[in-house]
Amino acid sequence: MIMKAIWGLKLEFKIKNFLILILLSFLMTPVWSQDAESEFIQSIYNQSLTRGSSYEWLHYLTKRVGARLSGSPQAAAAVEYTRQMLDSLGLDRVWLQPVEVPHWVRGDKEQVRIVNSSRLGTQDLHATSLGNSIGTGPLGLVGEVIEVHSLKEVEDLGRDKIAGKIVFYNRPMDKTLHRTFMAYGGAVDQRGGGASQAARFGAKAVLVRSMTTATDLVPHTGALRYQDGVPQIPALAIATKDADLLSQLLKQESVSVYLRNTCRMQKPEPSFNVIGEITGSTYPDQVILVGGHLDSWDVGEGAHDDGAGCVQSMQVLQTLMRLGYRPQHTIRCVLFMNEENGGAGGDEYAKVAMAENVFHLAAIESDAGGFLPLGFGLSSDTEVMDGYWAQVEPFNKYLEPLGLKMAKGGGGSDIGPLRPQKGMLFGLSPDSQRYFDYHHTDIDTFDKVNERELTLGAAAMTTLVYLLDQFASR
Amino acid sequence: MIMKAIWGLKLEFKIKNFLILILLSFLMTPVWSQDAESEFIQSIYNQSLTRGSSYEWLHYLTKRVGARLSGSPQAAAAVEYTRQMLDSLGLDRVWLQPVEVPHWVRGDKEQVRIVNSSRLGTQDLHATSLGNSIGTGPLGLVGEVIEVHSLKEVEDLGRDKIAGKIVFYNRPMDKTLHRTFMAYGGAVDQRGGGASQAARFGAKAVLVRSMTTATDLVPHTGALRYQDGVPQIPALAIATKDADLLSQLLKQESVSVYLRNTCRMQKPEPSFNVIGEITGSTYPDQVILVGGHLDSWDVGEGAHDDGAGCVQSMQVLQTLMRLGYRPQHTIRCVLFMNEENGGAGGDEYAKVAMAENVFHLAAIESDAGGFLPLGFGLSSDTEVMDGYWAQVEPFNKYLEPLGLKMAKGGGGSDIGPLRPQKGMLFGLSPDSQRYFDYHHTDIDTFDKVNERELTLGAAAMTTLVYLLDQFASR
Repeated sequence: MIMKAIWGLKLEFKIKNFLILILLSFLMTPVWSQDAESEFIQSIYNQSLTRGSSYEWLHYLTKRVGARLSGSPQAAAAVEYTRQMLDSLGLDRVWLQPVEVPHWVRGDKEQVRIVNSSRLGTQDLHATSLGNSIGTGPLGLVGEVIEVHSLKEVEDLGRDKIAGKIVFYNRPMDKTLHRTFMAYGGAVDQRGGGASQAARFGAKAVLVRSMTTATDLVPHTGALRYQDGVPQIPALAIATKDADLLSQLLKQESVSVYLRNTCRMQKPEPSFNVIGEITGSTYPDQVILVGGHLDSWDVGEGAHDDGAGCVQSMQVLQTLMRLGYRPQHTIRCVLFMNEENGGAGGDEYAKVAMAENVFHLAAIESDAGGFLPLGFGLSSDTEVMDGYWAQVEPFNKYLEPLGLKMAKGGGGSDIGPLRPQKGMLFGLSPDSQRYFDYHHTDIDTFDKVNERELTLGAAAMTTLVYLLDQFASR
Repeated sequence: MIMKAIWGLKLEFKIKNFLILILLSFLMTPVWSQDAESEFIQSIYNQSLTRGSSYEWLHYLTKRVGARLSGSPQAAAAVEYTRQMLDSLGLDRVWLQPVEVPHWVRGDKEQVRIVNSSRLGTQDLHATSLGNSIGTGPLGLVGEVIEVHSLKEVEDLGRDKIAGKIVFYNRPMDKTLHRTFMAYGGAVDQRGGGASQAARFGAKAVLVRSMTTATDLVPHTGALRYQDGVPQIPALAIATKDADLLSQLLKQESVSVYLRNTCRMQKPEPSFNVIGEITGSTYPDQVILVGGHLDSWDVGEGAHDDGAGCVQSMQVLQTLMRLGYRPQHTIRCVLFMNEENGGAGGDEYAKVAMAENVFHLAAIESDAGGFLPLGFGLSSDTEVMDGYWAQVEPFNKYLEPLGLKMAKGGGGSDIGPLRPQKGMLFGLSPDSQRYFDYHHTDIDTFDKVNERELTLGAAAMTTLVYLLDQFASR
């Protein structure tokens, strides 16, 4: 029918004839073979793309609840909202799993100001405190800036050059790497460990170039961790354009900066992982888990990180329920608390699972944004990896027509603590090109998420859950 | 070095351990083998991602020039700007190829108003005239609306039901299709041919549901073509939410609509294709072409359609020049005029090429948006297709590590007229999920284009040009 319509179009109108070429090639390649699995996967996609609720849920989570840092009232609201939504799906069981979480608060809007430039006079920079940072105190502090490009360089410069200074880490993410997570991995030690390294040599504070491939005025927060036995000093990120400006100035003159922030770590708070499941008919004690993390940073709306992963995971259960699918294994959706600054939810979940001897045959995490899904990465204990790979590599027959590919290597930080169980750990791998434009910022908002891309991710996860339930075993 | 940094990170901080899993898998799989081709492709990516000008050029083309409908002053400005930019690259030859183009003008802002609803009273709908449409005249017109879902249904209903009515085509694009271009192909006959079909049975005007997978208030223009010998009637698209509303009302009551638009086709105007080349050292008369179309619709900024394809094509030559690459074949960038409402530029280009006996070994068109590139599609004359496929299928060895795949089926409407030469016709295939959110609308603007995605497309095209130049022959 399409064929006929298209040829009619070609005869009558000269419209985008490239379209015809593309279509013809698709028409000649049947996308679906006609086995029962292919038919069920088609029904997953039809259901997901026409009636899925992930986008609507994400709207509520981002626009009505907003940023959801662990321990905040918004995180509590997110727990209650997602519990209610899971309750509405008619699952076999929905519950909250208690977990104690750290509670960091940002305090006043940060100030980072160049105060003595002969060229610029004073100049405010776009800055954000790093998560878990202490504050400068209400009066702020002033110090001379010294630029470095690695933690090692701080050590090489030593106490003589570092003591009393504000250390400015300015090694950029490498834009030439196709996979932006690799570029992130190559730079993020400055954010995570830069403060304690600088403090070890007497620095009074640190500034870090924002972790992003973009060149703009948006500062990116994210976790730092203070090392035991080293003084804690304030740490803030500045936008990449401001980092370039500061670096340029430092080539020409000595620069001092005024910093003020009032963030602090408060006492831990009670919170929850949110869990819902369809109990397995044959293997109720073997779980296939889908999940994301419900907490976010306290800036923006936590749309891609990781509202998207939460609502996709919820939609996996919604789709299977609506299709009337009765799984052999227990299919469980887990929305983890506190991925961003502690990982308490993931740790607690694994601890309970192991105490109760509930085996996780597979866990699939979506925590790389709600972008076009490109595939999955599998990791597991080396002892069992080959056996699992032999089971899931054939899934590519079903995945490739959907633009998906099963690869080795992947997982997620919330499901990582399940590793000792020696099940399969999967990460959903979406397009990563835009992720670090928004990651941990004010602009990680609902409008940055495309409904189709988000929904295709949910459909991809549902497909993998279905294939695992049908074909995988420990 | 990354390995060491990452492991250090793992020991010291619990940060996104999924990252480590992903990285380890990449570290274990060398992305580049060490042959000369792989090294050159790496240099293409490095150059493109750090120093390419495509994003900056696109900024000018969208924000300073703006929408560029054939025959408009903006189209003339775009010709001059891109000619200057190509001139600045130090190519062997840059020139303008004259072509006469149609000149359609939209006139006043369109009005589409429900005038007699017992439930809503009067209600304005979000509408845009279809390109090439005639106007209603200054007074507008009123008619009763009849909803149909295909051109065939108009014929089945016949003159009795259609005469004197406003025919409302409301068959949606099929959201369940993974490839949105297939969904477009399955619906666009309503836009292209709906007006003449309705006029044949006496309709006074048509409304068409906008061609998009989104449900929103954004109307989408695009070409219609009037058939010879059939009366011309006005045709407008309405936004999908308004189409749903109108359809809902029609289930309950008879609905009349007031339409007013003042668009008209003016006399043809002189214009140009913009061309630049690096002349081949061994086969100067065999061309490898890269191109997009310089014209756009008169709404929005023509950012994805097809400013993106133009600046990507220009960047292919920029990158090869900067790398000092001396091609064996002539590498030519062609920015075609009038793809949107006539195809005069593509026709003229092919006519001249054939008259001058310049063989196009390959032509690569980018006209599906500046999104993440996923591969290329090849088409050619059936007689020579197998031979070409045998030459380019092995390119997958180089393409797959870049997230790209060579497939059969593809091309582009501007390069289509080169088909009789029996060379290779390629289309760049980007992620298509967001394309129809913006296509032919006010919101196809610069901010919808991501710098990395755009640039990766240019790098992908440069890579294919390089591989063809090295390994392909007629």
